[in-house]
Amino acid sequence: MILVLAGGVGGAKLAQGLASQLPPEELLIVVNTGDDFIHLGLHISPDVDTVMYWLAGLNDRIRGWGLAGETWNFMTALGRLGDPTWFRLGDSDLATHVVRTQRLACSETLSEVTRHLSRQLGIAHHVAPMSDDSVRTIIHTTDGTLAFQDYFVRLRCAPTVTAVSFDGIEKAAPSPAFIAAMADPHLRTIVICPSNPLLSIDPILSIPGVLQWLRQRRVPAVAVSPIVGGQAIKGPAAKILRELGRDVSVLGIAEHYRGLIDGLVIDAIDEITAPAIEGLGLSVTVTNTVMANLDDQKALASVALALAAQIADGAHA
Amino acid sequence: MILVLAGGVGGAKLAQGLASQLPPEELLIVVNTGDDFIHLGLHISPDVDTVMYWLAGLNDRIRGWGLAGETWNFMTALGRLGDPTWFRLGDSDLATHVVRTQRLACSETLSEVTRHLSRQLGIAHHVAPMSDDSVRTIIHTTDGTLAFQDYFVRLRCAPTVTAVSFDGIEKAAPSPAFIAAMADPHLRTIVICPSNPLLSIDPILSIPGVLQWLRQRRVPAVAVSPIVGGQAIKGPAAKILRELGRDVSVLGIAEHYRGLIDGLVIDAIDEITAPAIEGLGLSVTVTNTVMANLDDQKALASVALALAAQIADGAHA
Repeated sequence: MILVLAGGVGGAKLAQGLASQLPPEELLIVVNTGDDFIHLGLHISPDVDTVMYWLAGLNDRIRGWGLAGETWNFMTALGRLGDPTWFRLGDSDLATHVVRTQRLACSETLSEVTRHLSRQLGIAHHVAPMSDDSVRTIIHTTDGTLAFQDYFVRLRCAPTVTAVSFDGIEKAAPSPAFIAAMADPHLRTIVICPSNPLLSIDPILSIPGVLQWLRQRRVPAVAVSPIVGGQAIKGPAAKILRELGRDVSVLGIAEHYRGLIDGLVIDAIDEITAPAIEGLGLSVTVTNTVMANLDDQKALASVALALAAQIADGAHA
Repeated sequence: MILVLAGGVGGAKLAQGLASQLPPEELLIVVNTGDDFIHLGLHISPDVDTVMYWLAGLNDRIRGWGLAGETWNFMTALGRLGDPTWFRLGDSDLATHVVRTQRLACSETLSEVTRHLSRQLGIAHHVAPMSDDSVRTIIHTTDGTLAFQDYFVRLRCAPTVTAVSFDGIEKAAPSPAFIAAMADPHLRTIVICPSNPLLSIDPILSIPGVLQWLRQRRVPAVAVSPIVGGQAIKGPAAKILRELGRDVSVLGIAEHYRGLIDGLVIDAIDEITAPAIEGLGLSVTVTNTVMANLDDQKALASVALALAAQIADGAHA
């Protein structure tokens, strides 16, 4: 049993790589829901949808989010009606939000809705939200406090970040599947995807009990660095780390996850940093971490699993 | 000031004809909302939308309902998610329902939402729902009791109708614009569109106070027959009238509206019936009532207004 912690596109890519080589019952993908928001009366779960669309093979690979072959006639009509169009909802993608919103209104949990949507999309593996409770990532900036999508989409990450907080986190419980995985005696590895550590992974780790469980884990945990050569492959991770005075490097990532992981997969471009990371007591694997296609995703998934296996062997030795 | 009572396509066509020759402040189009329903969590007002789309010149003329150039990718995606697809919602049309639903959830009235949507669509004339209260047309059939859209769309009007009722009608008030028009000293004519008398016009007439007001009116009221040569131009009007044992003819329409109208516009094909209708005390104009294009719509609107003017002159003489 492998537990994967994932955010949006980086998480979706590695999750798809893992899913392509693990049977459904051996993988649980727990996805950040701090980005969720209610827009136009619809419950939108951007990271859950990204992971589902990639696992279903329906994703738009260029854009990263949303469905391949998407059309935008709803947005054009919405603009004609004078409603805000800064958050783009594709015509096909809309069905996901409408169905989710309706099922949540009928008292289904986000876990149940996600399971239903996954199955309808033909996904064999188990995708679960990090929590069925409402957690909202709040971005504190020099321009004021912003809801996540306001910062991320509407303002395109332009404001300077001073802090990140997760509204509702103190009352949030891990989702049932997440709880079950943490208690599962067959759990053998935890994989933290190359998602934004502050915006995508920290919400998951901030759910009460998760950090403590991770610190006390008896199975190897490995992360894949989302920082490559001092830059984020996608999104504002590097910019935010810099604004918060953090080290924008694979070493900074290693320090961020210190005590929570046993191993870190870094890109070949960062090979020179490997000894410093090992100096922190972490095992390191150097490989290509830029996932340009499914082969890359599978290869990176194999490397992450091999690193975890190697750590487990070392612990047993 | 002209007050128009309208249902779906027939109402929309005549309303567009009237709007093309009357200034905005001289026309109020009151639209049936008995067909409204909540579907996929969205508030759908089919007749209001049909009237708005025609007045905005955005309608699909062939299909009658919905927008020209519509796409259906939402429906395809909805079907993939296993949700019912019997009620077709176009990608662009969806924006109307999403905006309406959200505004109603924010405590706007259906009148306010309709005014907002109309203005955004560039409609100068005033379209108002018959009521801001929930009225739901119920079709009693030999197969059981059916919600309107179940009967009309899902079952394609196949069940045999035994009665029609309007759930919530006893507590429904006319919309503010409708009330204002009924009390307006400048009101000079009431036009009942060639919409289904049982399904589209009767809900409006059944709102408490409307029938009594219409019986006591001091201004001419004219209707355009939706029955032409014993058939309905569109929809199940003829079938339902037959199933309810009514006379499926322009004379049947005249009897249906007896006491509520002073004049009836009938098609040339029904000219032979004119004396019988006049025998009921109604004025009759015979013309082409089949509106194949905007010129037909304008001509029929002119004929209806001329009949009303002629009745007013007769009353003054």
